[in-house]
Amino acid sequence: MKDTLLAICQNTTTHDKAKNISSAISMIEQAAQKKAQLVMLPEIFFYPYELQNLAAIAEEYGDTPALLSQKAKELGIFLCAGSLPIKEKGKLYNRACLFGPDGTLLLQHDKCHLFDVDLPDLKTSESAVFTPGATAQVVDTEIGTIGMLICYDIRFPELARKLALCGAEIILVPAAFNTITGPAHWHTLFRTRAIENQCYVAAASPARNNNAGYRAYGHSMVIDPWGEIIAEADIGEEIIYAELSEKKLLDTRSRLPLLKHRRPEIY
Amino acid sequence: MKDTLLAICQNTTTHDKAKNISSAISMIEQAAQKKAQLVMLPEIFFYPYELQNLAAIAEEYGDTPALLSQKAKELGIFLCAGSLPIKEKGKLYNRACLFGPDGTLLLQHDKCHLFDVDLPDLKTSESAVFTPGATAQVVDTEIGTIGMLICYDIRFPELARKLALCGAEIILVPAAFNTITGPAHWHTLFRTRAIENQCYVAAASPARNNNAGYRAYGHSMVIDPWGEIIAEADIGEEIIYAELSEKKLLDTRSRLPLLKHRRPEIY
Repeated sequence: MKDTLLAICQNTTTHDKAKNISSAISMIEQAAQKKAQLVMLPEIFFYPYELQNLAAIAEEYGDTPALLSQKAKELGIFLCAGSLPIKEKGKLYNRACLFGPDGTLLLQHDKCHLFDVDLPDLKTSESAVFTPGATAQVVDTEIGTIGMLICYDIRFPELARKLALCGAEIILVPAAFNTITGPAHWHTLFRTRAIENQCYVAAASPARNNNAGYRAYGHSMVIDPWGEIIAEADIGEEIIYAELSEKKLLDTRSRLPLLKHRRPEIY
Repeated sequence: MKDTLLAICQNTTTHDKAKNISSAISMIEQAAQKKAQLVMLPEIFFYPYELQNLAAIAEEYGDTPALLSQKAKELGIFLCAGSLPIKEKGKLYNRACLFGPDGTLLLQHDKCHLFDVDLPDLKTSESAVFTPGATAQVVDTEIGTIGMLICYDIRFPELARKLALCGAEIILVPAAFNTITGPAHWHTLFRTRAIENQCYVAAASPARNNNAGYRAYGHSMVIDPWGEIIAEADIGEEIIYAELSEKKLLDTRSRLPLLKHRRPEIY
């Protein structure tokens, strides 16, 4: 990997999709102005995470991805366009897209694990709405080998591990934990994925919107390969920046060579 | 599993092995007096974790395990006898033993991942001293299905996951993190193993001994299946107690059924 300035846009998602998109674009432009080379948006960055409404605001792969691809090209940045609800052949996917500085779609990831839970004050069934993805991959770029996961995927150590074994140095995770799972698990899970896989992990959440039916946890953050949080947002709309360092990654991996100490024959 | 009172004896390990054993036994007796049904000691509970000295104080599987087995029987408790350096056919293993209330050896675990690191202020090569274990298993008992790991094993998500998939409800981890890796990773890693595997995780450390060549982190703790730390020691000699609740385990697993949401076909 190369030293890279990463920015996460923790944007507010209201019930006005067009306004959310234009405000996200404006945050991306601000981040690029501050020299960010890799910019990231959260899970379903253009609407509150209200499952019952996502099918209605979903799109075929078309206008919004095209706009984001064009923006990546115009600004000459890598852009992880958070995730979008994408309709395809009658199915709905929760899809993250990574565009390169020439606008190319470099990588896409469909959320593989769907959040079907029955917690006190939180009952939800994503599998009633979304079709899960079936793969997780990485892409080699000039700034590093990048993999993506979406939100609930982070709870499953196997998937981040798969990306690491495929060479991931940076794992981008658009996510929308809530005010129950966030305080309980957000920092712990994301930090562990960075520690055990010795890579950079970036978690992008929407800002908290108390007028929405789903209250995102916020606290977007970037974690280094030793597990330190090197940038963290509060709960409001905010852009955070973090320097990803090649030296830090290589030092961590050489001094505590976890990935070489695996014992796959036992697992 | 059944509701169970677990105790961790965070004993001080000095350079007097006989004294350490007798003091550990006395702590086990205290814990049993307070009605603990499952009692646990830390990694290499009878000597400071000074690698250069461990071969000299190691034993064949003999007197010390026999003493601990007898103590488990006398007190009618499950006893995780931390770990011991055990010589076997010219090799040395870092071995954890679990005795039942009738004194039977129910389960043993040889540390599978050896800590070979080159950190600032901490260079160590366990593989120069120990032979690694080659399996990880669980045992069904009347208080629950129990698995064991040792220290560095916890950094590898695959091994705790293997135990969980074999049915582990309680994972016992004798460990001796130090004052560098402890503050950086101890709480985060152990909590994540509990969260992602939805089981009780108990981490037993020796007390900090500033006169020893290896300064253990302390902070023995018990974590519930939701990831909450329900008991935690400071750095000194101390016994901590925690109630393991069947209801908490079942509730967590039914409300957020992570283990059922795995997608092994993708990994």
